[in-house]
Amino acid sequence: MDVRAAVAFEAGKPLSIETVQLDGPRGGEVLVEIKATGVCHTDAYTLSGMDSEGKFPCILGHEGAGVVVDVGPGVTTLKKGDHVIPLYTPECRNCDYCLSRKTNLCQAIRVTQGQGVMPDGTSRFRCDGAPVWHYMGTSTFANYTVLPEIAVAKIREDAPFDKVCYIGCGVTTGLGAVIYTAKVTPGANVVVFGLGGIGLNVIQGARMVGANMIIGVDLNPERKAMAEKFGMTHFVNPKDMKEDELVPYLVNLTKGGADYSFECIGNVKTMRQALECCHKGWGESIIIGVAPSGAEIATRPFQLVTGRVWKGSAFGGARGRSDVPQIVDWYMDGKINIDDLITHVMPLDKINDAFDLMHAGKSIRSVVTF
Amino acid sequence: MDVRAAVAFEAGKPLSIETVQLDGPRGGEVLVEIKATGVCHTDAYTLSGMDSEGKFPCILGHEGAGVVVDVGPGVTTLKKGDHVIPLYTPECRNCDYCLSRKTNLCQAIRVTQGQGVMPDGTSRFRCDGAPVWHYMGTSTFANYTVLPEIAVAKIREDAPFDKVCYIGCGVTTGLGAVIYTAKVTPGANVVVFGLGGIGLNVIQGARMVGANMIIGVDLNPERKAMAEKFGMTHFVNPKDMKEDELVPYLVNLTKGGADYSFECIGNVKTMRQALECCHKGWGESIIIGVAPSGAEIATRPFQLVTGRVWKGSAFGGARGRSDVPQIVDWYMDGKINIDDLITHVMPLDKINDAFDLMHAGKSIRSVVTF
Repeated sequence: MDVRAAVAFEAGKPLSIETVQLDGPRGGEVLVEIKATGVCHTDAYTLSGMDSEGKFPCILGHEGAGVVVDVGPGVTTLKKGDHVIPLYTPECRNCDYCLSRKTNLCQAIRVTQGQGVMPDGTSRFRCDGAPVWHYMGTSTFANYTVLPEIAVAKIREDAPFDKVCYIGCGVTTGLGAVIYTAKVTPGANVVVFGLGGIGLNVIQGARMVGANMIIGVDLNPERKAMAEKFGMTHFVNPKDMKEDELVPYLVNLTKGGADYSFECIGNVKTMRQALECCHKGWGESIIIGVAPSGAEIATRPFQLVTGRVWKGSAFGGARGRSDVPQIVDWYMDGKINIDDLITHVMPLDKINDAFDLMHAGKSIRSVVTF
Repeated sequence: MDVRAAVAFEAGKPLSIETVQLDGPRGGEVLVEIKATGVCHTDAYTLSGMDSEGKFPCILGHEGAGVVVDVGPGVTTLKKGDHVIPLYTPECRNCDYCLSRKTNLCQAIRVTQGQGVMPDGTSRFRCDGAPVWHYMGTSTFANYTVLPEIAVAKIREDAPFDKVCYIGCGVTTGLGAVIYTAKVTPGANVVVFGLGGIGLNVIQGARMVGANMIIGVDLNPERKAMAEKFGMTHFVNPKDMKEDELVPYLVNLTKGGADYSFECIGNVKTMRQALECCHKGWGESIIIGVAPSGAEIATRPFQLVTGRVWKGSAFGGARGRSDVPQIVDWYMDGKINIDDLITHVMPLDKINDAFDLMHAGKSIRSVVTF
């Protein structure tokens, strides 16, 4: 079938809106009509050419929502008409990782996903007869896409696609890091480094679970008002002090240090500050941000021996098929705010504007609707 | 009263056996007759002059066992005749740290302990009229010492002092890191870096809780036989491969990586290897070893974002008054082996031999009996 897609033909170039050919779903796969998709920093990272797994030409996009329109042989958990969110972190429920009950990093299709192909080793997309590669197993910058059944979360039918698509990545990454990775407890003091989309979702996650102080750290004072709306109780601008004063300031503000801190920037220096502002004896720091290739974190081991814990989180520690439907419920119940995070909505033709807005720092999240 | 003690008059010099004067216990303190004491690397570290908290002259020693012979006003949990183990990590059960239920790092007397004095700010020891400082709040290199009530674990009376004194530091540090800090589960694969006294106690802790593979890593092949006696299932000598082959070798041996790893050396390079040999998704690495002042650990944050956890452990995460008596029971029940770890026993007069044996790598643990 012909589908409309934004194709990334090469690194560093704008996306090109094309009509491409999509094969139907094979065994264990479903065809999904994408109704809306967010545009995320990770798409921009791969488009920039810095992602070593990036493979062109490809169809980017990993933050979508849509409707199942066809199912391949052997599909048992989804049917035509189901409303769904594609999952770049699948949940097969059968691999050693899923069965460990300790991680959300299902490895069932990790290798082929990283190679830009479906689990059978081939691509479903073609353009002028040549293959176009899948991206993160999702390729949501197209009005139709094919997905493995294990990489699809079924959600309720009354949820608006142009809002809950954001749960496909950013919302879950931030909220989940609080709830599933850190397991923040009521009354805890939380410090959040970086008040972009991920940081704001960390903040509303901390508010949702009953955190006490929710301290936001950002160089941009314009983030303060929005972050307060999401639950931030204290704003700290590192520009207001010398570099080596930030950690003692945060330790003092929290009367001993953060119970939990979250790094949502991707800077190894702030990752160290996030660890070291944690409370002696029990403070846990969670790395969410993606650092530049080759960059390393460092600290004195004494920081850990005296009880701080250094962790990371991917897709918020969420098991997609199990947890994403619940996050959709939380949105529908008004427990979390997504509407105010979606600052721009545009048609597929204007998708390059979404990247421009992101790079200019003008958007929290842009959503493309089909 | 006059007591016999090994006094450290200055850094880098042998200990000197002296008769020193000891004041009786004040409020909240007890007088303990020390019957036996281990000699630990930490004593040697402070004696070397590298410990920034080291204060001379002092009476070293923090791994003792003995009998309460007098109690000061207000002491309610101990009485004359009680058999006890002094605790360099106290357990007041009232400070924010004790009450957090998240850490064993009681801070009730941390400041004065670090200054070499009792909680009232003074020393109980004098030599030729001048104060001699306490060390780690314990000073067990003396046949009598004064301790805060909160820094004393009461143990059963049939336990031999010359064995259970080792529970005052080394045994608990290794065993506790497995049981209280990492909470190693039955069937887990464990990698232990460094097969000295701490590493051997990690190994027997892992055996006790039912670990599957227990892999020891050490440059010295002579450690193999002893470690196997304590439960090691596989020995890996890094000298048998190139430096960058060790981590992949361990990941392959464990079919994906260690569920838990322990660094018992104090080397920041092996700390990194210990983290990176952990299993993607859930492997936890525990730093026990004390690194040289100023040394830093480093890794790529991707190691944490993909699910590994970096932690540390001090005194094995054990709450001294609550947990040490139980470890004594485990020894008396034959669940753990201490006898074979105590390779040398000597009188106080020969205590400098214990340091020589340690530096020469000839002892696992030397114990001084009074």
